[in-house]
Amino acid sequence: MSYPPALEELIEVFRLFPGIGAKTAQRLSFFLLSQSSEEVEQMARTMVYAKRRISYCSECASFTEKDPCNICTDPKREQEVICVVQFPRDVLVLEKTGQYRGLYHVLHGALSPIDGIGPEELKIPQLKKKVEEKGIKEVVIATNPNVEGDATASYLSRLIKPLGVRVTRIGFGLPVGGDLEYADELTLGRALDGRMDL
Amino acid sequence: MSYPPALEELIEVFRLFPGIGAKTAQRLSFFLLSQSSEEVEQMARTMVYAKRRISYCSECASFTEKDPCNICTDPKREQEVICVVQFPRDVLVLEKTGQYRGLYHVLHGALSPIDGIGPEELKIPQLKKKVEEKGIKEVVIATNPNVEGDATASYLSRLIKPLGVRVTRIGFGLPVGGDLEYADELTLGRALDGRMDL
Repeated sequence: MSYPPALEELIEVFRLFPGIGAKTAQRLSFFLLSQSSEEVEQMARTMVYAKRRISYCSECASFTEKDPCNICTDPKREQEVICVVQFPRDVLVLEKTGQYRGLYHVLHGALSPIDGIGPEELKIPQLKKKVEEKGIKEVVIATNPNVEGDATASYLSRLIKPLGVRVTRIGFGLPVGGDLEYADELTLGRALDGRMDL
Repeated sequence: MSYPPALEELIEVFRLFPGIGAKTAQRLSFFLLSQSSEEVEQMARTMVYAKRRISYCSECASFTEKDPCNICTDPKREQEVICVVQFPRDVLVLEKTGQYRGLYHVLHGALSPIDGIGPEELKIPQLKKKVEEKGIKEVVIATNPNVEGDATASYLSRLIKPLGVRVTRIGFGLPVGGDLEYADELTLGRALDGRMDL
């Protein structure tokens, strides 16, 4: 005894997604079946449409519906600064600050030798080429503040500085609204390193 | 600045699912876009196909691809015993024990006056009709052991016993492999109530 085959297949589809286990896949499947046929068809169409419309920008490797993307083709952006991030979603987060006016480059991950992820698995060769060919003056590294992100930042620094380009990394320290009492030692240490004159 | 419209729409689709928040919906969307067009189209087809194929059995209200379902039409099942469960998935769990040979009836929920769920919102009228018309001898209640499940069980008992039908509820007690030391008082109390002669 098991579920009807079509339901088992549906559950298998949801299990393909990262972080979705057997129980959640069942729950999502039951929800889907509780929707009307029209709603399910609309969901399916949206999925296929999104996949058809959205690609990675050939310049910065972020998500876009047109290639190159709106940021890469915006003449008002600073053309000599590139901010390097791990994932397309990071571009959105930085844009929301409204403080960055340069270009982006999405690596699609971070260096992780244990997982077999070296420079060639990321968009690092493309970054080097762009820096060399486009007269880039500064590369702002905004990889995540963890082991892989740190390793990637120091690798990129060693790769790009010899080209005579300034390499910076976004600051570490206390989050705004945070409390010194609750900061961990590593963050506090980095906040001290990153102290600025007042 | 936001994601491309087609991606925003995709994220909205995932947010429709219960228990899926903004971050998870993003993660699922990014995963979907990382799949090939063929894979996405296959997923979409599986969803639409499952919705088209699967309906609720007109007899027991469980999931089925043919109506009535395999259990309701199986002449080898005991025709005079009905087990009442809250959800279609519960049928599968009980079938896996291999110990129940009767029919099922899925309520699609439990009584919950706070949420406005009364007998008419569940498949309770259909259950009463079936019990009256099909010569049912016993109704085994297997609703969940919580407030709503208990309320539903006692409501069904008051509804069905007057028809001269035996009403039972599956036993409560220690889970097999469990340890007395870690049992909560409520479970232990119910285990004492449910003690049997050896």
